[in-house]
Amino acid sequence: MRLKRIGIDTRRESIAFLDDDELTSRALGLHPMDRIMVSANGRSVLAVLNTVEGTVVPKGTIGLSNMAFAKLGARDGTIVDVGPAEPPASMEILRAKMAGRELSASDFGYVTNDIVQGRFSKIELTAFVVSTMIFGLSDNEIIGLTNAMIESGDQLKFDSKIVADKHCTGGVPGNRTTPIVASIGAAAGLVIPKTSSRSVTSPAGTADTMEVLMDVELSPARIYDVVRRESGCLAWGGALNLAPADDMIIQVEHPLGIDAESLMISSILAKKKAAGSTHVLLDIPSGLGTKAETAEKAERLKQRFQHLGSRLGLNIRGLLTNGSQPIGNGIGPVLEAQDVIKILRNDPDAPRDLREKSLYLAGELLELTGTTRDEGYAIAERILSTGQAFEKFERIRSLQGRRESPPLGGHIQDVMSEKYGRITAINNRLIARVAQLAGAPHNPGAGVYLAKHVNETVDSRQLLFRLYAESDEALAFATRYWEEKGDVGITIS
Amino acid sequence: MRLKRIGIDTRRESIAFLDDDELTSRALGLHPMDRIMVSANGRSVLAVLNTVEGTVVPKGTIGLSNMAFAKLGARDGTIVDVGPAEPPASMEILRAKMAGRELSASDFGYVTNDIVQGRFSKIELTAFVVSTMIFGLSDNEIIGLTNAMIESGDQLKFDSKIVADKHCTGGVPGNRTTPIVASIGAAAGLVIPKTSSRSVTSPAGTADTMEVLMDVELSPARIYDVVRRESGCLAWGGALNLAPADDMIIQVEHPLGIDAESLMISSILAKKKAAGSTHVLLDIPSGLGTKAETAEKAERLKQRFQHLGSRLGLNIRGLLTNGSQPIGNGIGPVLEAQDVIKILRNDPDAPRDLREKSLYLAGELLELTGTTRDEGYAIAERILSTGQAFEKFERIRSLQGRRESPPLGGHIQDVMSEKYGRITAINNRLIARVAQLAGAPHNPGAGVYLAKHVNETVDSRQLLFRLYAESDEALAFATRYWEEKGDVGITIS
Repeated sequence: MRLKRIGIDTRRESIAFLDDDELTSRALGLHPMDRIMVSANGRSVLAVLNTVEGTVVPKGTIGLSNMAFAKLGARDGTIVDVGPAEPPASMEILRAKMAGRELSASDFGYVTNDIVQGRFSKIELTAFVVSTMIFGLSDNEIIGLTNAMIESGDQLKFDSKIVADKHCTGGVPGNRTTPIVASIGAAAGLVIPKTSSRSVTSPAGTADTMEVLMDVELSPARIYDVVRRESGCLAWGGALNLAPADDMIIQVEHPLGIDAESLMISSILAKKKAAGSTHVLLDIPSGLGTKAETAEKAERLKQRFQHLGSRLGLNIRGLLTNGSQPIGNGIGPVLEAQDVIKILRNDPDAPRDLREKSLYLAGELLELTGTTRDEGYAIAERILSTGQAFEKFERIRSLQGRRESPPLGGHIQDVMSEKYGRITAINNRLIARVAQLAGAPHNPGAGVYLAKHVNETVDSRQLLFRLYAESDEALAFATRYWEEKGDVGITIS
Repeated sequence: MRLKRIGIDTRRESIAFLDDDELTSRALGLHPMDRIMVSANGRSVLAVLNTVEGTVVPKGTIGLSNMAFAKLGARDGTIVDVGPAEPPASMEILRAKMAGRELSASDFGYVTNDIVQGRFSKIELTAFVVSTMIFGLSDNEIIGLTNAMIESGDQLKFDSKIVADKHCTGGVPGNRTTPIVASIGAAAGLVIPKTSSRSVTSPAGTADTMEVLMDVELSPARIYDVVRRESGCLAWGGALNLAPADDMIIQVEHPLGIDAESLMISSILAKKKAAGSTHVLLDIPSGLGTKAETAEKAERLKQRFQHLGSRLGLNIRGLLTNGSQPIGNGIGPVLEAQDVIKILRNDPDAPRDLREKSLYLAGELLELTGTTRDEGYAIAERILSTGQAFEKFERIRSLQGRRESPPLGGHIQDVMSEKYGRITAINNRLIARVAQLAGAPHNPGAGVYLAKHVNETVDSRQLLFRLYAESDEALAFATRYWEEKGDVGITIS
């Protein structure tokens, strides 16, 4: 049979496509959804068999999804062997987890490897994630999984005793402190090679936001170079193959709207450790829409992170922060980049809440890393207000590859208050959803400019927020959604 | 955007395919794996968005998987609306089940409806199945789910106070009693409209086996006609849309190698009830590879079936049978059809174990339905040995549409004993796998002819079994597998 690249992107799941008549007539002993092995030139790839009809996959050929095609490393038209494959070894381990049994470090090694190699279909990956969520993982299991995740990918190593990092457990729109904290930290002399993610469920990740201003897809060699020269960087972690199993787990958690705590802890620890960090400041916002909706849960999460971090040789300081409403004005890549630049440039209309929080985090990071004993906030404030942080940011930006921000979306809708009163609540989830429907982060100029925060008073017909989109269609989706749900999005009384 | 039929069969999962550049450039505010709504002419379908590259889905068009395309009911090239969709209502219910909460009858109604309508992706379906398996379902939940399953599909109704049925929980290769029991029952005057399934994980289902000899894809009207004339039929249930959620649940259970007991009970009860049955004989084999590997589990399953059946108005009699080894000689559609015909024709070389078991089940069914008080076995034996059962079978065969059996596969391999001794064990799973690798049930002439059973003695170089395949490739798969694993497949000591 000949190999065909059909250009179907099924992400990390390896799928083989075969014409359904072909499957019957060839008498291969294979059935749809079977796990098969496709081999050529001494290499082979495991895939789940899907059948198609029509002309997508011509007779005599077998199609592979993009990643499986790349993994096999053979050209279009190569003669390949196709046969049944036994389930991966980790299927037994998966069944043990579904039965609630505790897994060993080596069990997690097999599972993680099979996930990364695309040998788990979405069904198996979901079964793993759901049973892990239901039964939870013991501390030993988290350590085992974390180490397996680290080993399943690449690792960065920096020539410094202290490698600083920060992370936020997320859920608060506009909370773009990272570029500010990293710039202050690097300006203070800390080695802080920030690798960030793109958005999964939010209107923007730090990498999406930074990409508006600079190249973020850096090779490890480029990262080492930037960090050697400026002691910090602002790169996209996804280009680096750090603990890659995590990205695939998120792909099944996202549509289910779940976030298995054990997997979340494990994936954060693995990413940080694989990125070479030694000291990690962990921002744990609590409030509606965050990962710790109550203060009790936030405290427990903090303790667990600190304890497990120390078992892995990571010095983690968790900070419980107020995550009850969006932070800053911008929600969406370009809008958030504008907030960051305003703060770094000490613009008078820079959002004060985001500036304050960034200084607080930067100060704590300086203390955690021993740069100062208890003067963290004051030092951070000085570095920011004297323009040293901005200078550092701009140097990193030039080294990584400066970009000028694209414009905001040209399709605009103002949303005004319908009455006079005081804002008592702003729903993180709803505001984020509106920004997403407007096109963020896929369309970087799309999003929400939030003009008011909780405790501010508004007049009727005063601006609550402005919607930016890059098409009328997207603007209409976002506007329609707000018209349906907006009454619980911003509460005025 | 124009609709395109691209011929990709993703089973009941509704997938929409869009070119990845198109997705970015159109600024639709949509992302890969988002749930979207595709609408045309006042109808709409929910689908999960996958991105493709290349020429599969031309610019300006959106592709739909086969079932989604059919459901939208629009022609190729129709202008369609595409937009984001909110998660189905049952997502909240799914999350409740993942959190271990008990669901109500109406909850199951929503979930079942969304499953049947293809609104659950494989990820969500797997999450439902796995959490149901882990937490189990209470009796009330099983009743709720069963009723929801029945209502989600069509139902058969027969004009008879007693409608007999039989079912086997499975796992024993070659155990093809149904055609024999149904022929005896119908010949005894019972209304026994047998609807059977095709194989999911086995080398043959009753429907696959009967299809070798007759048409089994009958409309309800044809079934009513055949049953009115002969009081029995041997149809494929899958053509009838009875409790269809079941088929989709099996599609995720199969690759995981799991069988959630609650879902299994619910699906069997729903299929029987939807098929119009009132009295059900339930064959529960126990042994390695069956659903009740121990006698205790089999007994518990029997009690649960009988109890839940009575709550649903079904009179169920569970029978615990020996499922420790394959039954009959043939494993695979043509081979099993040959066993059935030999027994019905009272051939001297008919497999005695399968004949005995069929008579036992038929006798119990005659007693359960009140046809006789305690003469069941004797009556069944008389009907079989006088040829009345065969006559009944042949009349049903003619009415449904007689077919002549295709030949056995022409690619043959004999597997001989390597030593003298007594057979102490035959592994159901391994023998089934060999038959599947040889091509059963997809290639009806493929499979295993098992020449020996447990407790028989064999000489070295005496035939253990003969493999039939329809291609050299399939024969090689099966042979290679046996060479690797056969030492634990048949134990001789």
